[in-house]
Order: sequence, then C-alpha cells, then structure tokens
Amino acid sequence: GMDEAPAPASPAGLSAYVAVSQLLGLTLLVTTGAWLGRYRGGVAWHSSLQFNVHPLCMVLGMVFLQGDALLVYRVFRHEAKRSTKALHALLHGLALVIALVGIVAVFESHRAKGIPDMYSLHSWCGMATFVLYLLQWLLGCGFFLFPGASFSLRSQYKPHHIFFGISLFILSIAACLLGITEMLLFKISDSYSHFVPEGILANTLGVLLVAFGLVVGYVLTRDDWKRPPLAEELALSMDFKTLTEGESPGDGSQ
Amino acid sequence: GMDEAPAPASPAGLSAYVAVSQLLGLTLLVTTGAWLGRYRGGVAWHSSLQFNVHPLCMVLGMVFLQGDALLVYRVFRHEAKRSTKALHALLHGLALVIALVGIVAVFESHRAKGIPDMYSLHSWCGMATFVLYLLQWLLGCGFFLFPGASFSLRSQYKPHHIFFGISLFILSIAACLLGITEMLLFKISDSYSHFVPEGILANTLGVLLVAFGLVVGYVLTRDDWKRPPLAEELALSMDFKTLTEGESPGDGSQ
Repeated sequence: GMDEAPAPASPAGLSAYVAVSQLLGLTLLVTTGAWLGRYRGGVAWHSSLQFNVHPLCMVLGMVFLQGDALLVYRVFRHEAKRSTKALHALLHGLALVIALVGIVAVFESHRAKGIPDMYSLHSWCGMATFVLYLLQWLLGCGFFLFPGASFSLRSQYKPHHIFFGISLFILSIAACLLGITEMLLFKISDSYSHFVPEGILANTLGVLLVAFGLVVGYVLTRDDWKRPPLAEELALSMDFKTLTEGESPGDGSQ
Repeated sequence: GMDEAPAPASPAGLSAYVAVSQLLGLTLLVTTGAWLGRYRGGVAWHSSLQFNVHPLCMVLGMVFLQGDALLVYRVFRHEAKRSTKALHALLHGLALVIALVGIVAVFESHRAKGIPDMYSLHSWCGMATFVLYLLQWLLGCGFFLFPGASFSLRSQYKPHHIFFGISLFILSIAACLLGITEMLLFKISDSYSHFVPEGILANTLGVLLVAFGLVVGYVLTRDDWKRPPLAEELALSMDFKTLTEGESPGDGSQ
C-alpha cells in the first residue's frame, strides 16, 4: 500500500527479483561461453570459429542487454524520466550493435563454408525479430526521444511500444532456443540422444534463457511494481493535458 | 471512453482481432494437417505413423484450445462470470486431455522405434510446460471453481494465475517451434537448406504459431479490452470486501 513506504524506496520484492534476473543473465553468458569454449573450440573472428561469435553475441545483445533495457524503468524508478529513457535507448542501441556483429558472423561463416542462408525456421524467426527490433528502436527514438511528437501521439503509441517491446524480447529468446536446437542437431546429432554432457549443458542454457525471460517478464508486468510518475511529472502532465486537450487529469490510465 | 458505447457492446477492434485469431488458429490446424498428410504419410495410431499424432495434438490442444481458453473472458465479456469461468476451465481441461494423447503418442512411437526419450531441449521445454500447465489447471480449479477459497485468497492468487497462464501459452508455442525444427532436421536434413516445399511449409507453420501468439497476447493484455465487472459483481464484491476486510471499495486494482 502507498501508506507503508516512503516514496524513494523500491518495493521489497522488486530488488530481489531484479537481483535474481541479473544473476540469471550472468549465468546465461557464462554458460554460453562454457559451451563454446569447452565443446566448440572457442570464439575467433578470422577463423573457422567465426560462427561461434553468433550465439555469444545474440545471447549478450538480444537477451541479456535487451532484458536489462526493459528493466531500467523498474530499477531506476525514482530517477528523472529523461535519464532513464536515455539509458533505455542506449542499452537497446548497444544490444542492436552487438546483435548486428553476431548476424554478420553467421553470414560470413556460411559464405566461407558454402552453407545457404535464411532457409531455417531459426533464421526466419531470428531475422524477423532483429528487423522488427531495429524498427521498434527507430520508432521509439522518433516518438519518445526527439521533441517532435505531441503528448497525445506519445500516449497513443506508448502501450503499443510496450506490447511489441515485450513481444520482441520473448521472440528473441524463442529464436535462441531454436538456434540451440539447430546447433546441437548439426554438431552432435549422433550422441545427443545419449545424454552427452554437451547436450545437457546446451539444454540447460535453454532452460536458463526461459528462466531469465520469466523473471524479467514478471518484473515488467507486475502492476504494483510499475514506475510511479514523479510528483513533478504528474503536475506537468496534468497542466499539459488540461492546456492542450482539455482532458480531465485523472484520465491518463491508457 | 465509457460515455461513447452502451454497456453490452464489445469494443469495435476487439471483435476484429478475435476473428483474426480464430482464422489464424484454424489455419494452424490446416497447415499442420497439410504437412503431416502431404509430406509425412498422414496420421494413424496403431502404425508407424503414430508419431504424427504428436504434432497434431499439441498444436490443437496446447496452442489453439489453450489460446481460446484464455480468450473467453474477452469474448464473453458481458456473460455471467460463473459461466465464463466454467468454459475457461473446460477448454483448458480439453486441451490437457488432447495434449496427453499427443504425449502418449510420442512415447509409444519412441518405444516402438527404440529412440530414447526426454534428451532434447524440445522435450525438456515441452514436458515442463505440460506438467506446469496441469498444475496451473488444478490450482485454478482449487482457487476459483470450488467454493473453499476466500475472496482475499482469490484476489491474491489471481494476478499470478494470469501471469503464469500467459507464460505457459507462450512456452507452449516455443515448444512447438522447437518441435518443428527437430522434426525438419531429423526428416529432411539433406534438403532443408535447398528451400524444398516441405521446409517452407513447416517454417510457415512456425510463423503462423508466432502470429497466433501475438494476436492472442495483444487481445489479452490490451487494457481497455479487459472484462469490465458486471454491475451486480461490483456491488457484491464491494459489500463483501467492506464486510470481511474493511477495505475501501475502490482499492481492488491488484
């Protein structure tokens, strides 16, 4: 309830869930590194190991950094919206650059080995997710960072930005799971069914990806963990709405 | 806004989105049937085609029926909550039975062919999803259908029931995508990369599964499409809460 805690404190459970999400995120990266390092010869750009850059970059960019970019409004709930928004855009931008490196890695590696591109369900889902993620980032910058869009346009777009943002995060994790399955069936199809350690490790990476998605999703969607507007934002938006549209100040729930 | 439409009408966009979801759901089933019928020899229980019962049942039960069970509170938004709740439980129960048939089919088919069970990421994700889905159904019946649980217990459990319900629906779709990828790499690993029609068809099934998930997810999470409490429910819950807990009637947003 609003009467129990002073304004600048975070809800008790929130910090614990965010801590678990970060622990899971780091475990994801370590597990991916362990798989590639221990069983797939490691990672290097100018070599036959170039392919291995792909899973590492996609897990780091499209899952860990994208997830953290979604969490900033919960973690920095009492910071000015301007700075939190900039961090949100920056983390997504970083995720996009790292994902692009990962995509270049798989295309170059395919070309070197004469493997066709874009025939698998993994490539269809992954590429669609990346292109829509780039589009979402551009739209987000256009609507929320640059001063052109009106208050009314912003608040109409915002719920769609949130829905597609969470959808793209889920799709990114699904694309990773498909990539893990593809890679195991390409590399260890003969031994996978005998529960070899590499299979168990890669399956565990899949389970960790799902767990990260669940924890981040829970933090994002829990109603009483949403970022409360700061006192000055509330006052400003009321003034602004009353001035520009004549709406009643309490009608901002959309 | 509340002043534009009379109470018993559904929001205009809602019906269109629900219609699209049902069209997509039927297309899912037809596409799965076309894949199995045209390229995989069809479906039969007591034969080498028993495996094919698995994808058909999982798409029908864990995706189409589960999705429709989630939609009933949006579609029948002005029916009595009692009947809508019964339909919700019934559709999930039907989905569970059909999914169980699909799971028996894959275990029996593995045994007949001497293939080990439960080694792949698909089987881990799929089995975890099914077991948690059964658990969620039992908890849902216990909390919401049987009269034992108090109003306060129900409203504490409800947001978790919703979060895990949507999560399990997403996980079901992810497990299907993994199953499609596995099946293609087992059956047409040599020709998949040459864009053969079976590969394109199965990839398209994957895209349709994602599209169905997105449309259902959008309908479920859009704020102004949530089921409004009926006048008599509102009155009852206010009385009940005031009587039992002394909460203010407006404090029911959790």
